[in-house]
Amino acid sequence: MDALLCGVDLGGTKLSVGLVEQDGRLVDKVVAYDHTRKAEAELVLQIRDLVRELLRRNRLDESALLGIGVGFAGHLRFKDGVVITSSNFPGLRIKNFPLRKAIQEHFRVPVAVDNDANAQGYAEHRFGAGAGYDTVIFLTLSTGIGAGLVLDGKLYRGMTGTAGEFGHTIVEPSSDLVCGCGNRGCLFALAAGQSLPQLVKKKLDRGLKTTLEIEDLRRIDGRRIKEAVDRGDELARAVVLECADYVGIGLYNLFQIFNPPVIVLGGGLINWGPLYLERIEKKFYSLAGDMLFDPIRIALSKLGPDAGVIGAAALVLEKP
Amino acid sequence: MDALLCGVDLGGTKLSVGLVEQDGRLVDKVVAYDHTRKAEAELVLQIRDLVRELLRRNRLDESALLGIGVGFAGHLRFKDGVVITSSNFPGLRIKNFPLRKAIQEHFRVPVAVDNDANAQGYAEHRFGAGAGYDTVIFLTLSTGIGAGLVLDGKLYRGMTGTAGEFGHTIVEPSSDLVCGCGNRGCLFALAAGQSLPQLVKKKLDRGLKTTLEIEDLRRIDGRRIKEAVDRGDELARAVVLECADYVGIGLYNLFQIFNPPVIVLGGGLINWGPLYLERIEKKFYSLAGDMLFDPIRIALSKLGPDAGVIGAAALVLEKP
Repeated sequence: MDALLCGVDLGGTKLSVGLVEQDGRLVDKVVAYDHTRKAEAELVLQIRDLVRELLRRNRLDESALLGIGVGFAGHLRFKDGVVITSSNFPGLRIKNFPLRKAIQEHFRVPVAVDNDANAQGYAEHRFGAGAGYDTVIFLTLSTGIGAGLVLDGKLYRGMTGTAGEFGHTIVEPSSDLVCGCGNRGCLFALAAGQSLPQLVKKKLDRGLKTTLEIEDLRRIDGRRIKEAVDRGDELARAVVLECADYVGIGLYNLFQIFNPPVIVLGGGLINWGPLYLERIEKKFYSLAGDMLFDPIRIALSKLGPDAGVIGAAALVLEKP
Repeated sequence: MDALLCGVDLGGTKLSVGLVEQDGRLVDKVVAYDHTRKAEAELVLQIRDLVRELLRRNRLDESALLGIGVGFAGHLRFKDGVVITSSNFPGLRIKNFPLRKAIQEHFRVPVAVDNDANAQGYAEHRFGAGAGYDTVIFLTLSTGIGAGLVLDGKLYRGMTGTAGEFGHTIVEPSSDLVCGCGNRGCLFALAAGQSLPQLVKKKLDRGLKTTLEIEDLRRIDGRRIKEAVDRGDELARAVVLECADYVGIGLYNLFQIFNPPVIVLGGGLINWGPLYLERIEKKFYSLAGDMLFDPIRIALSKLGPDAGVIGAAALVLEKP
């Protein structure tokens, strides 16, 4: 049997560890939900124990692994494998925590650590919707918005390792929607899951009717919006279409910058379905017009609900 | 003596051909202004004759050249060296004209053809303000706005060869400023030299006073705006600052996407000087805030008035 990949998805809500074949198929996984409040040392031990558990119950030894890839929902200084920001992980308090080194200490096989959007983008290139393309722009539409840039066969990471923060590009500077980053009118503020409460509030202020429970706006998320749309909710529908228009502008901007053969959309919001996705495409094509000299594919992620783990695992396959 | 580079700058106003040393120093050049209305075959012969003239008066043979690089002010299908759009060259009417092949037929040394912004970006990386950096984002602020992307040591061109069309990224979708591309609120419409007439008109409509000659708005260009600013013109000053704010947003978007160590600004509008450049930086830093994990250099082009020719010549040095 070929060596397996181990993927560790360090997300903001769950920590998933999976065994993945070299063609991207998930073999088995374990999940924990109590990781975000753990301090550094504890979190690293939890990861170690989850990997060991997974190996044990599959009757495997560490030597069955080609390596361990870790996808982290935050900024990393890539070359050093060091955490820069960790707003999703209140337990992480050590400045510049050397995440890769700390995990590596518990394993003999190589450990790679990267931002989760980069990891998923690379997985789409290796065995997802971007397979067969040398250049793949992956855009995740989720609680946040971010991109993974595979250019000419390689993950492009930039100076620090934070390239692809496409969610913070500004497309409506005079917007009254403010992002957690402090700026107005970045894609994150206009179209990310985390911004849905303020998007709903804005529509309420304009008098749109809704069946959403609006007593506590903070509880509004992508799933609730989807359910409301499905029951014919006018306001939820308007929110989905507005998000789609901004994502369409983002896609167009990515097209002008990268002229890629394929853009892959992933993240939970793609479950909003055709109302959302068709509007994104419509906006994109209306802007691109006759500037599309070659056809571009706009594809949906093929990695499914385990995209995080499979993405993390794919990092192991990256050549230095 | 080391072999020389020959650069051919096929611009919208002039055709310059230069001999350039391998460190980027210009040795000699010839310029023509009557090229844009020539048909394909004539234009190619004009290029051949200018190269020959330059060689002759420097007592050189073609074998003294390492190769010939051509920077073209329009869209090219890079791999084939074929012209896609040629709005700057009314004489070019043949669809998909194979520019590289047509020029190559007249020379034994290799001929490389690329978009002018790519060429200049590569030259900044090889021997300009981006020397010593593996990744250089070059942004030209001129009649148009465009980028040349040198990523991890290589020019990134995308699928067709039209990557880096950063001027057409949209940053103000509800703007009333429309670009030649048909879209509203792209950087080109908001801040390029070609858009100055409509920017001036907008300020006039808002009642700003000016000493500019506004009988024929089409004559308003970067130079006239600069002269007006220098004599204390309120409207011209407002135009410069507004352009700078949008370029600052563009720079910030480039930073979030590429996380580059350096962004090089070039093109004629940088001659607007400190009023413009300091405002661009101010906008950039106010947006980047605490998201700048490593310092980024914002530098001005070092290639000077012959950036076009030197850029074209640099293409010869590119490894396949």
